[in-house]
Amino acid sequence: MTLTEKAAQLGSVNADALFDERGRLDETALDEHLSNGIGHLTRLGGEGGLSPQTAAERTNDIQGYLQEETRLGIPAIPHEECLSGYMGPEGTTFPQMIGVASTWSPDLLAEITDSIRSQLEAIGTAHALSPVLDVARDLRWGRVEETFGEDPYLVASMACSYVDGLQNDGDGISATLKHFAGHSVGAGGKNRSSVSLGRRELRETHLFPFEAAVRTANAESVMNAYHDIDGVPCASDHWLLTDVLRGEWGFEGTVVSDYYSVEFLRSEHGVAADRQEAGITALEAGIDVELPYTDCYGEHLSAAVEEGQLDEETIDRAVRRVLRMKARKGLLDDASVDPKTASDPFGTAATELTARAARESMTLLKNEDDLLPLGEELDTLAVVGPKADDPQELMGDYAYPAHYPEEEIDFEATTPLDAVRVRSDDCGFEVRYERGCTTTGHDTDGIDRAVDAVTDADVAVAFVGARSAVDFSDAEGDDDRPSVPTSGEGCDVVDLGLPGVQQELVERCHETDTPLIVVVVSGKPHSIEWIAERVPAVLQAWLPGEQGGEGVASVLFGEHNPSGHLPVSIPRTVGQLPIHYSRKPNTATEEYVYTGSDPLYVFGHGLSYTDFEYGDLSLSTDELPPTGTVTAEITVANTGDRSGHDVVQLYASAQNPDQARPVQELVGFERVHIDAGEAKRVRFEVDASQLAYHDRNLDLAVEAGPYEFRVGHSAADIVTSASFEVTETKPVPLPERTYFTKTGVSGAER
Amino acid sequence: MTLTEKAAQLGSVNADALFDERGRLDETALDEHLSNGIGHLTRLGGEGGLSPQTAAERTNDIQGYLQEETRLGIPAIPHEECLSGYMGPEGTTFPQMIGVASTWSPDLLAEITDSIRSQLEAIGTAHALSPVLDVARDLRWGRVEETFGEDPYLVASMACSYVDGLQNDGDGISATLKHFAGHSVGAGGKNRSSVSLGRRELRETHLFPFEAAVRTANAESVMNAYHDIDGVPCASDHWLLTDVLRGEWGFEGTVVSDYYSVEFLRSEHGVAADRQEAGITALEAGIDVELPYTDCYGEHLSAAVEEGQLDEETIDRAVRRVLRMKARKGLLDDASVDPKTASDPFGTAATELTARAARESMTLLKNEDDLLPLGEELDTLAVVGPKADDPQELMGDYAYPAHYPEEEIDFEATTPLDAVRVRSDDCGFEVRYERGCTTTGHDTDGIDRAVDAVTDADVAVAFVGARSAVDFSDAEGDDDRPSVPTSGEGCDVVDLGLPGVQQELVERCHETDTPLIVVVVSGKPHSIEWIAERVPAVLQAWLPGEQGGEGVASVLFGEHNPSGHLPVSIPRTVGQLPIHYSRKPNTATEEYVYTGSDPLYVFGHGLSYTDFEYGDLSLSTDELPPTGTVTAEITVANTGDRSGHDVVQLYASAQNPDQARPVQELVGFERVHIDAGEAKRVRFEVDASQLAYHDRNLDLAVEAGPYEFRVGHSAADIVTSASFEVTETKPVPLPERTYFTKTGVSGAER
Repeated sequence: MTLTEKAAQLGSVNADALFDERGRLDETALDEHLSNGIGHLTRLGGEGGLSPQTAAERTNDIQGYLQEETRLGIPAIPHEECLSGYMGPEGTTFPQMIGVASTWSPDLLAEITDSIRSQLEAIGTAHALSPVLDVARDLRWGRVEETFGEDPYLVASMACSYVDGLQNDGDGISATLKHFAGHSVGAGGKNRSSVSLGRRELRETHLFPFEAAVRTANAESVMNAYHDIDGVPCASDHWLLTDVLRGEWGFEGTVVSDYYSVEFLRSEHGVAADRQEAGITALEAGIDVELPYTDCYGEHLSAAVEEGQLDEETIDRAVRRVLRMKARKGLLDDASVDPKTASDPFGTAATELTARAARESMTLLKNEDDLLPLGEELDTLAVVGPKADDPQELMGDYAYPAHYPEEEIDFEATTPLDAVRVRSDDCGFEVRYERGCTTTGHDTDGIDRAVDAVTDADVAVAFVGARSAVDFSDAEGDDDRPSVPTSGEGCDVVDLGLPGVQQELVERCHETDTPLIVVVVSGKPHSIEWIAERVPAVLQAWLPGEQGGEGVASVLFGEHNPSGHLPVSIPRTVGQLPIHYSRKPNTATEEYVYTGSDPLYVFGHGLSYTDFEYGDLSLSTDELPPTGTVTAEITVANTGDRSGHDVVQLYASAQNPDQARPVQELVGFERVHIDAGEAKRVRFEVDASQLAYHDRNLDLAVEAGPYEFRVGHSAADIVTSASFEVTETKPVPLPERTYFTKTGVSGAER
Repeated sequence: MTLTEKAAQLGSVNADALFDERGRLDETALDEHLSNGIGHLTRLGGEGGLSPQTAAERTNDIQGYLQEETRLGIPAIPHEECLSGYMGPEGTTFPQMIGVASTWSPDLLAEITDSIRSQLEAIGTAHALSPVLDVARDLRWGRVEETFGEDPYLVASMACSYVDGLQNDGDGISATLKHFAGHSVGAGGKNRSSVSLGRRELRETHLFPFEAAVRTANAESVMNAYHDIDGVPCASDHWLLTDVLRGEWGFEGTVVSDYYSVEFLRSEHGVAADRQEAGITALEAGIDVELPYTDCYGEHLSAAVEEGQLDEETIDRAVRRVLRMKARKGLLDDASVDPKTASDPFGTAATELTARAARESMTLLKNEDDLLPLGEELDTLAVVGPKADDPQELMGDYAYPAHYPEEEIDFEATTPLDAVRVRSDDCGFEVRYERGCTTTGHDTDGIDRAVDAVTDADVAVAFVGARSAVDFSDAEGDDDRPSVPTSGEGCDVVDLGLPGVQQELVERCHETDTPLIVVVVSGKPHSIEWIAERVPAVLQAWLPGEQGGEGVASVLFGEHNPSGHLPVSIPRTVGQLPIHYSRKPNTATEEYVYTGSDPLYVFGHGLSYTDFEYGDLSLSTDELPPTGTVTAEITVANTGDRSGHDVVQLYASAQNPDQARPVQELVGFERVHIDAGEAKRVRFEVDASQLAYHDRNLDLAVEAGPYEFRVGHSAADIVTSASFEVTETKPVPLPERTYFTKTGVSGAER
C-alpha cells in the first residue's frame, strides 16, 4: 500500500457527496474521495434519507466501485447512527435508552438491538455508532436521555446486552462504545466542557462499563469523547486510548473519533496549532479513524510522514486495525447486499417489539389511593398537555423522525392520545383533548380551554415534559418558540423544571376537583417536587418511541402492570446535583439549609399494581472471601392480586474501607415475573472480585473487612441485609476480575 | 519525655473546662487534662467569652500551671479563630474576607491582620486558625464568604499579606493556612462532601495559594480539610500532608486538624474502625496536632505504640514540630502577658481601620445615568430592607458578635441606617425607613409599608442579602424563621436567589416611580439577573463588618469613590455553576439552551465615579523567555472629574499549549490612585516561571509557544493586549519558581 492508500483507510467520506442529483455515482467525486480507497462511509442511508432499498443499492454502488475501480479493491465500512433504532427512513424507533434502562431487562435490550441489527444489515451497514456508556451524573446535560442512567453496574449490564444483540457474536454489526470517557460530567453539565475527575473515580464510575463491554462483550469499536479530563483532551489522551484500552484491557478493535473531535483539538481545545498537528496528535494517542470525514487525517498524515513528524509505523498500526475489522466483517469477501429484500426487516415484528419496550419502560412514581389503573367506571377522560399528541415528542435525539419536519417524512407512530382513543372506542368513555400549551412557548391562552376540559371530567391526564432533538418552529433566537428542544445533544439546561408554561398548566388543572395524573414524557428527570407533593399519580414515560402511546395507555388502563424502575435519581431541584444514590457517606448525608440530601425519587424506585415482599435473605460462600463466590438468596412474594414483574436489587456496602467509598453500590439485579399469591427464590452469585476497589496505588484489590449485602425495592427502600467478612486483602489481577453477578430464579414455598 | 507526655503535646483542651464557676483553676480538671502538659489551648478567650483582661489573666493562670506544676514545664500554644477579626469579646470585626478581597489591596489586608495580631497578642494567643485559602468555585457553598474569591493568584496574593500581618516576620501569631486542600469544590457545593479533582487542577487551582504562602510567606501552620479527594480523606492523605507539603515545599511548621476531622475518619468517611485507628491514620499521614480537643490522639496514640501499631518515632516527629513552634514563639521563655494592658489594642485605631476597609470593599456593579452618588438636591430618602439596620447582618461567620443574641453581648456597630441618619442630620434630608421584611421569613405584611415609604421619595435604597452565621430566632426546623443563615459554615444552599421574600420587596419597590438602588449585603453572590436588568444602581457591599454602614454610606453619598472589584463572578442562576472566568475554552464557550456561558457580572468588574482609560501597552524582556522577565507597562489615565483608585488587571493566555488550559489567568494587578485628569504608568514584571503549567507528567514547565498578555477592567473587559513567544519548553525546578509579579507605578505624560 502506498502512504496515500494507507492514509485513506483512516478516513471517511459523506456518502451523499458521491452521488449526483439523479442518484448516480459522480465520477468527479469518486476521483476526489475514493480513488485511493476509504476507511468508512458516513451514514449513507441515514444522512442521505434513503429508503432501505435505495440505501442498499447505493451501498452496492460504492462498494462495487471500491472493489473494482481502485487499485487495492478494498470496500469501506459503512457506519450509521442507531442508538434507539436505525436513524434513517423506515428505521423502527425504540424508546430512548434511558427508558430501556428503566426496564432493568438486558434481555429485552438484546432483542431490540438484534432487531436494529437486522435493519442495518439489510442496507449493508457494518458499523454502528452506539451504545452510549456514559454514566449520568449531571442532569443538566442534554444527553442524559441517551444513557442507561447513573449507575456503572446497570450501565455496564445494559451496554453489554446492547453490544451482544448488535454484534451477534461477531457476525453482526460492530458496536461502538462511547464516549470514552467521562463525557457525562462536563463542567456545568455542558456538552463538551471540561471534566474534573481523579483517576479512581474515573475508573470506578466511568471506565467500569467500558472495561466490562470490552472484556466480556468483545465490543469491536470505541469512540473518544470531546472533552478534556484534567486538561488532557480525550482525543489526545494516549494513556486512555492506548495504555488503558489496549494495554490493560486488550482491546483489538478500532478507535473512531467522535465527529469533528480531531479538529476540535485545534479549534476548541487550542492544543494543536493546525490540522496537521491535530491529526498527528490524535493518531499517536490512539484514534484510528477520523469521522465523519477526512479533515485532519488523509493528506495531513501523509505530509506529516514525509516531513518526518510522524512515524509511518504509527499509520500502519491503525491501518492494520481497520483492515482486520474489514476482514472480520466479511467485507473483503462480499460487501454487497440484496436491495430486493432490504425492506424485509422493517416490519411488524419490530413495531411489536418497540411497543413492548415502551410498555416495559413505564415507571410509576406515585399512585395515591390506587388512582391507577383507570377503571371500567370511567365516563369522561380529559387529556391535556403538549406531549399528548405529537409523535415527535415521543422520540429521543438520534431518532430519525425527530430530526425532520413531520410533513417531510413518512413514519408511523402512536401517540398517547391515539392510544387513549382506541380504548375510548372499545370501552365507550368520552375523551376530551386540549393541548393547553406547547412545550416551550409562553402562550397561556390554551390553558383555560384545557382547564375547561379537565373540569367535571372523571379523571385528567396531563402529558408534559421536554422536547428532544430538533426544533422546526422557525425563528432562531426567539425564546418563545413553541418547541425548543431542552434535551438531546447540545441541549443542556440550567434548570430542571418543566419547560415553558407546562408547570402552570399542571397547577391550573390540579386546582379543579378532577383527579389528575401527570405523565412525564421526557428523556431526563425534571424537578417536579411541587407535582409529586400534590398530584395523586405520576408516571415517568421517558421518550417511549414510535409506539410510546401504546406503552403509556397500556399502563393507564391496567392492561400492563408497570415494572419500570428509575435508572437515575430525580432531584428536588437543579441545585442538589449531583444526587446519585452511590455518593460517599459524607456527601450523601450533608444537607442544605432548606433542602435535604435525598432526591425526590431515588434510583431503583418504581411502583407496581401489585405488592412484592422480600424475606429469608441467606448468604453462603463456597470459599472464604476474598476468593470464591458469595451467594445471596432471597424469597420474593407477590402479595397483591395481580401478576407482575419485580426488579430485585442487590447492593453491596464496604463497612470499613481503606478509602471513602460509596455508601452502597448495585452489584446485582433480577427482573422476575411472579403470579399473584406466588413466590420465587432469587439467587445472586457474586464473585468476590466484584467487591474490588482501586486502592491507594490505584491497583484493583478486594479489601479485608466487613461487608454488607442489602436487598431492596430501591436504593433507599432497603428491606433486608446480611453481613460477611473478607478475611484478607487480595489484589485482583485483571484476568481474574468478574464484572457481573450470575442470577437464578426458582420456585419458592410461601 | 514519657510516651504520655509526648502524646499530650499533640492534643488540645477546651480552656473553659479548666476553670470552675468562679473562674479559678479547677484542680480536678487540671489533673485530668493538663498534668502531662498539653499541645494547644482551644479558644480560651473566644469560646470562653472573656474580656481581654480576663482572657489574659486566665492565659497566665494556665501557662503558669503548666510551667510550674507539670514535670516538663512546657506552656501550651493558645489558639483562636480570627478570620475577619479576633472572634472574642471586644475583638474588632473587619469586613468578611470576600469583601477584603474585593479591595484588591494586599497592603490593606496586612494592616488589618497587623491589627488583629495586636489584639490576639494582648490576650496571650500564639496561634490563629486563619486565613482561608480555598478557591471559591461553587457558590452554593456557605463558606464562599470566607475566601478571597475564585482566582488562585488573587487568593495567593491576599493570603500572603494576611500571613505577613499576622506573623510579623515570625515574631507574631502563627497563621494557619486552611483548608488543605480543595475544600471549596465539595460535591453539590456542600461543606465536607467529596471532591472530584485531577491532580493537575488540584495543583494549578487549589494548591497554588498554599504553595505560595508556604514558600514565600513562611506560614507556620496548615490545617487539613474535611473532605476526601477521589476517595482519600485529606486527614489521611500522606501524599498531600507530607509528600507535597513537607517534601516538595519544605514546610517546617505544624499541621493541625480541622476541628473533629480526625474523628470524622471513623464517623463520616468510615475509613477507620475506631478512634485509635483514626488517630494512627491521621498522625501517620501528617497531622501533628488534633483539635479542638484530644479525642483520637492522646491515650489512643500511647496505646497504639504500646500495642505495636504505631512507631514511636512517628509521635516524636510530631512532638518535635510542636516544641519547635513553642520555642520559636518564645513560649518556652515567657508565655505570660500583662492583663493591665490587654485592652489597649481594642480601640479607636482598629475601628477606623475597619471603617476604611469597609469603604474600600464596596463594589459598584451598576450605576445607570450616574444615579450614584446621591446629590445635594436630595430631600427624601427611603431606606428599606432587612439588611439596613441589623448589626449582625453586617458580619460574616467567624465574627464573634454574629454568634450570640444581640442582647447578650456588648458591641459597637454602625448600620447603614445609622450612617444614613448621620448624613441626614448633617445635610437636612428626610429619611423614611421601613424594614419591609426579614431576611428569610415569608411574612409580606411589611412590604406594603416599605412601598409606601418608597413612593414619592426622591430615591430609595433597598438593603438585601443573606444572613451569615447563626440564627437566634427560635424553633428549629421552622422554615419561616425570620433570619435563618444561608451563608457561613454548614449553610449551603441549592439556590442563589435572595432568601425569603426579599425579591418581592425589591420588585414592589421597583414598581414605584422612585429610582431604586439595591445594596446587596451578603457574603456570597446572588443570582440577581432580574434586578441587574431593571434597577438602575446595584452596589455589592459584601459583609462589611462592624463599621459596614459607614462604608456603604460613604459610597452612596460620594464621600468615597468606590474601587472594589469582584473577586468572584456572579452567575445568572445556580444552574450555570461553575462560572469562573478562567474556565478552559470549550467550557467557557459552550452555552445552555436558554442561557449563555457568561456570568451576570464577571470577575474583576467594579465601577468608579470616574473613568479610567488604558493605553500604550508595551512589552519588553531582559532575557529570552522561558528565562528572565517579561515586563508589561501600560498608561492609566483618569479621564473623569474626580480622583479615585483603579485596579489594573493583567491576564496571561497561552495560545497553543500542550494541554487544554484556562482561556486566560490573572498574573498581576495593581491598585493605583490617580487624580482627575492625571495619568500613571503601571509596570508589571512577570517572571517567565510564572507562565509555568503542570505538563503531562505533572512536572512544572514553561511551554514553548505564543503567549498573550491582556490588560483590562475585568476578565471580560479586556482593553488591550500584546503577544510574545516562548522559544523553548523549560522545566521549572521549585527553587526557581516565582509566584508574584513585581509591580511599580510612576507618573506618565498624558
